[in-house]
Amino acid sequence: MIVIMKADATMKQKSAVIARAESLGFKIHLSDGKERTIIGLIGDDRDLYKDQIERMPGVERLVPVLKPFKVASREFQPDDTTFKIGDIEIGGKELVIMAGPCSVESRSQIIETAWAVKEAGAHILRGGAFKPRSSPYAFQGLGEEGLKYMAEAREETGLPIITEVMEPALVPLVAEYSDILQIGARNMQNYALLHAVGKSQAPVLLKRGMSSLIEEWLMCAEYILSHGNTRVMLCERGIRTFETYTRNTFDINAIAVAKQLSHLPVIADPSHATGRWEYVAPAAKASVAAGADGLIIEVHPRPDEAMSDGLQSLKPEKFAQLVVDMRRVAEAVDREIP
Amino acid sequence: MIVIMKADATMKQKSAVIARAESLGFKIHLSDGKERTIIGLIGDDRDLYKDQIERMPGVERLVPVLKPFKVASREFQPDDTTFKIGDIEIGGKELVIMAGPCSVESRSQIIETAWAVKEAGAHILRGGAFKPRSSPYAFQGLGEEGLKYMAEAREETGLPIITEVMEPALVPLVAEYSDILQIGARNMQNYALLHAVGKSQAPVLLKRGMSSLIEEWLMCAEYILSHGNTRVMLCERGIRTFETYTRNTFDINAIAVAKQLSHLPVIADPSHATGRWEYVAPAAKASVAAGADGLIIEVHPRPDEAMSDGLQSLKPEKFAQLVVDMRRVAEAVDREIP
Amino acid sequence: MIVIMKADATMKQKSAVIARAESLGFKIHLSDGKERTIIGLIGDDRDLYKDQIERMPGVERLVPVLKPFKVASREFQPDDTTFKIGDIEIGGKELVIMAGPCSVESRSQIIETAWAVKEAGAHILRGGAFKPRSSPYAFQGLGEEGLKYMAEAREETGLPIITEVMEPALVPLVAEYSDILQIGARNMQNYALLHAVGKSQAPVLLKRGMSSLIEEWLMCAEYILSHGNTRVMLCERGIRTFETYTRNTFDINAIAVAKQLSHLPVIADPSHATGRWEYVAPAAKASVAAGADGLIIEVHPRPDEAMSDGLQSLKPEKFAQLVVDMRRVAEAVDREIP
Amino acid sequence: MIVIMKADATMKQKSAVIARAESLGFKIHLSDGKERTIIGLIGDDRDLYKDQIERMPGVERLVPVLKPFKVASREFQPDDTTFKIGDIEIGGKELVIMAGPCSVESRSQIIETAWAVKEAGAHILRGGAFKPRSSPYAFQGLGEEGLKYMAEAREETGLPIITEVMEPALVPLVAEYSDILQIGARNMQNYALLHAVGKSQAPVLLKRGMSSLIEEWLMCAEYILSHGNTRVMLCERGIRTFETYTRNTFDINAIAVAKQLSHLPVIADPSHATGRWEYVAPAAKASVAAGADGLIIEVHPRPDEAMSDGLQSLKPEKFAQLVVDMRRVAEAVDREIP
Repeated sequence: MIVIMKADATMKQKSAVIARAESLGFKIHLSDGKERTIIGLIGDDRDLYKDQIERMPGVERLVPVLKPFKVASREFQPDDTTFKIGDIEIGGKELVIMAGPCSVESRSQIIETAWAVKEAGAHILRGGAFKPRSSPYAFQGLGEEGLKYMAEAREETGLPIITEVMEPALVPLVAEYSDILQIGARNMQNYALLHAVGKSQAPVLLKRGMSSLIEEWLMCAEYILSHGNTRVMLCERGIRTFETYTRNTFDINAIAVAKQLSHLPVIADPSHATGRWEYVAPAAKASVAAGADGLIIEVHPRPDEAMSDGLQSLKPEKFAQLVVDMRRVAEAVDREIP
Repeated sequence: MIVIMKADATMKQKSAVIARAESLGFKIHLSDGKERTIIGLIGDDRDLYKDQIERMPGVERLVPVLKPFKVASREFQPDDTTFKIGDIEIGGKELVIMAGPCSVESRSQIIETAWAVKEAGAHILRGGAFKPRSSPYAFQGLGEEGLKYMAEAREETGLPIITEVMEPALVPLVAEYSDILQIGARNMQNYALLHAVGKSQAPVLLKRGMSSLIEEWLMCAEYILSHGNTRVMLCERGIRTFETYTRNTFDINAIAVAKQLSHLPVIADPSHATGRWEYVAPAAKASVAAGADGLIIEVHPRPDEAMSDGLQSLKPEKFAQLVVDMRRVAEAVDREIP
Repeated sequence: MIVIMKADATMKQKSAVIARAESLGFKIHLSDGKERTIIGLIGDDRDLYKDQIERMPGVERLVPVLKPFKVASREFQPDDTTFKIGDIEIGGKELVIMAGPCSVESRSQIIETAWAVKEAGAHILRGGAFKPRSSPYAFQGLGEEGLKYMAEAREETGLPIITEVMEPALVPLVAEYSDILQIGARNMQNYALLHAVGKSQAPVLLKRGMSSLIEEWLMCAEYILSHGNTRVMLCERGIRTFETYTRNTFDINAIAVAKQLSHLPVIADPSHATGRWEYVAPAAKASVAAGADGLIIEVHPRPDEAMSDGLQSLKPEKFAQLVVDMRRVAEAVDREIP
Repeated sequence: MIVIMKADATMKQKSAVIARAESLGFKIHLSDGKERTIIGLIGDDRDLYKDQIERMPGVERLVPVLKPFKVASREFQPDDTTFKIGDIEIGGKELVIMAGPCSVESRSQIIETAWAVKEAGAHILRGGAFKPRSSPYAFQGLGEEGLKYMAEAREETGLPIITEVMEPALVPLVAEYSDILQIGARNMQNYALLHAVGKSQAPVLLKRGMSSLIEEWLMCAEYILSHGNTRVMLCERGIRTFETYTRNTFDINAIAVAKQLSHLPVIADPSHATGRWEYVAPAAKASVAAGADGLIIEVHPRPDEAMSDGLQSLKPEKFAQLVVDMRRVAEAVDREIP
């Protein structure tokens, strides 16, 4: 931590900052410049109540030296995290494709879609049983019934399943049915939920919040990792900006940044990142070229009958073509889609 | 709902949209222009799966006519909502001042602060027992112990209390101790929590999410209102933008907009909206001038020892001066601070 | 300037950074911490090609210690800048009110409006002769003819005038007619234009760009000040964010921040900051409460016939009432509107 | 244009809107719904002073039906625009690679870089002679001397050149030396400059402003096209968002959207879009996969001696490898890099 004092900070103010820092266990390194005094605090930034120093008289600002996340960082673990979901390795040379409808709408719909995405080349089936909806009057998902249908679809097709969990109390229930727990963008900073999925030890896909800094996203991963649950995937799904032509702005840079800062696998969600099916294919291919370790894509057999997100859902035949196209791009960057 | 067809939409595509809309119970109003065909759907927009029409071939886009919120709207209830917390009326001519520390840190700290803010003119005591922190390693609040200390502070000073609840399962516990339940910005779209506080029937202060549209904020209020819980306050606390000099960008416009669109009282939080104590006073006075129905302000007896948010906390004597200053501004806009 | 080295930076990399910094004339202050080495460069940050150090192997990042602006800063000049436009003092205890139509549309329109705003209490007449329009097919302003009409309105009413200049080559022409040159938000970083108005020595109102950081805005003021032209006003007119309900998001915090960082007067533009006339009054009163030194407000005798920005223009009678209301708020914060 | 009336609009207000619209030459289509009256205005939206209707009593809002740009739109010209710069076709199956330093620093530097990028596979040489710098004290470019050096580099290597023009008065000078005129992000809405490059009839690369909507960007292209200058390239270079880890947020979605809305070629600038050389390669490959028609990339022989943008400049050998890698991705999406 570096403390930059104000130009007019007094000797007494500087001494007070030094005394406080020493009392907190930091070693001090003082540098008196022409225009500013800089006080270096040597020790672990992460333990400090930053505001307690920053609020002292004469202090202009504090500059943290270390990143706030630890277990999630590349410094902590230089090698990529890899783990298996069934036979599928996540985080290795091969990309994983997760696909399926936004919402589970019926037993037949999810099973029909499961077969379609499997034939098209998907490795994991996605589907929502508990749905976060902006309106209290909108369809809120089938709940446990939806989980049962997904489990049936897994039994029939052999595809592992991923579904969202929105509430700490429901983590055990959802973990009983699902192979991967998804934390949605709106719940990225729902800390009680992060603690609960951390404790569950189930694999987790953590979506980036729509106005979340990359570092905040990694701090949320840290919440899960702090429980010793290391099977965590990050998912970039677009951020909110001033541009409204697309539903979100796909932060393609975040893929390379997250992979540099962290050892965790990064999955791209081109469906939410664009919000319209016409733009899903270019965004998906761009994700592969940018180094994503996998994709999660919304597919619905009849998008114009979907009970949610039909506008961004691909038809199975479009999705099948996209898998073929992504495979070519993957090979062009020395990766593979099995 | 208005459907704008593409320039090259075929007769068949138009007929399909009309047939679908009619089957969903809408009456149709067709308008063939020189460059576009417009199809008006007469009925209640809110019941429609918007995507099901928007995804149809030949459709360029849909334009909703009605706002998505209903009970929260001025159309539904033209008169301002007012209600009482103890002797204090919220939403009337008089402004309410809530003040206190970010976190409850000890019994003596909260009681000392309670007396200080009461003497300065505050009507309600704020304080956090369960704290949403970006780091899993940071102080997470005293929990139920903190609630007990707040209740003691209420007993001693007579000030009603407000505190945050972060988890549906804890709503009954927090509601037992607290006069008002606060939903924090990070949890604005935590729908399970909104349902839980709605059901609790306790008064609620709903903070705007940091990248939330005003309409989305009102939709979250609608979640609470849909349970018949009408004692809801909206709280503008700044949004996230590209500007980083302040912690957030205070959307002062949102106060007037929210009061025009909705009958609910609007509270301003100048502490989070600025993030630095030097800017709290101008932002607070601006809120009063812009028509806020109350303020929630962080006050700490020794900000440089605060365990969270010390940088934006006022000392009691600064806060006391601010109340005096705000009272003058309130009178200048024909309001009062009792 | 502070250089933070990577955790794994080698001795050789550190030495190279030190050697480079010394060759650029900086004195060095080295601090070896447990997890990072920090190299302090003592000297004037502003002279440095920051990238040349930041790009060196082993460097994690650079932290500037000094602000990039100099003449615009409070450190350079602690006292508020004040200057006179005719009899009107800008930057003192009294607030200045500038008002008038978005565009000069005709001789009679501008003269009628000039009398109306004068009677309502405005001190300066605004009006656009050269208009930046998003469409090349839209009305682009009357050009020099518009300037002449404004000069006539000044002659009749005695009000000094302010108008926008969009092109370096036109600065002499506009300066010949107008008392104040306005730089619009879209041209904040049009450096050729900034140089030209700097050289002209005419008073300038510099609007903040719609995605401009406060520090960038002050750097643009620095461009003008660097020519010895000290009669510069800053103007906060709203920034672009994700919120689309209002035309812009009024960054009310920026008023207090700009006044703390700089000695220049700060003017608020509640018309562009909101984009709708209904919200102009609350935003205007908030600006006064937040410490603005003046306001610039769009007024049109018949807004529904305006050739631009009718939606955000006040009718003269609404404006007259607003001046009365603002005067009360000004007095509540110990300022005056003469 | 569609007019949505307020719920409580009176008969008289509706009649007034209809009368006004008819007087402006529109045909009327009236639709009385249960909760709202909708008035369709049939005619060319683009001619209308939108505010004149929107400001009328009883009007809730206006919805434009047509896009504001015309000549730039796919509806106006369904086929892709292609044109030649020397032997290089822009906008066809083959991608164009432009590369070179941020600033021309010396004769030898630009000639050395020109040879290096040519050998690596670039088709066009970029370099800045007039530089927009945030500080008035920073290096502002070599001016005409820099143009001369670029022309020499062209003569030696045969590479056409692209350079930025910042001022209308300098368009003839820059057009005399340069094969393509670049409009920088800060000048995207410098309308006098857009008119000047439109009139010059020289090929133009138009960068998207950093807070510009895609539709606004196309409106700026429309300014140039309105002069009959059809050789216009759009350039996505990242937008400003809350994320600060990268210099800008690369809006990869904008490539597909711009190509759908417009027939103009779209170039990607991964250097500014990321701001750090480590992220340029993934962003560049992503651009190719997303359908860009070309790239503009900063390359400097010794980035740690660059006078501007060294942090985001690639060394020639990294750039050479990137061209090889991009070629593979191009082939994977059925394009070519010659």
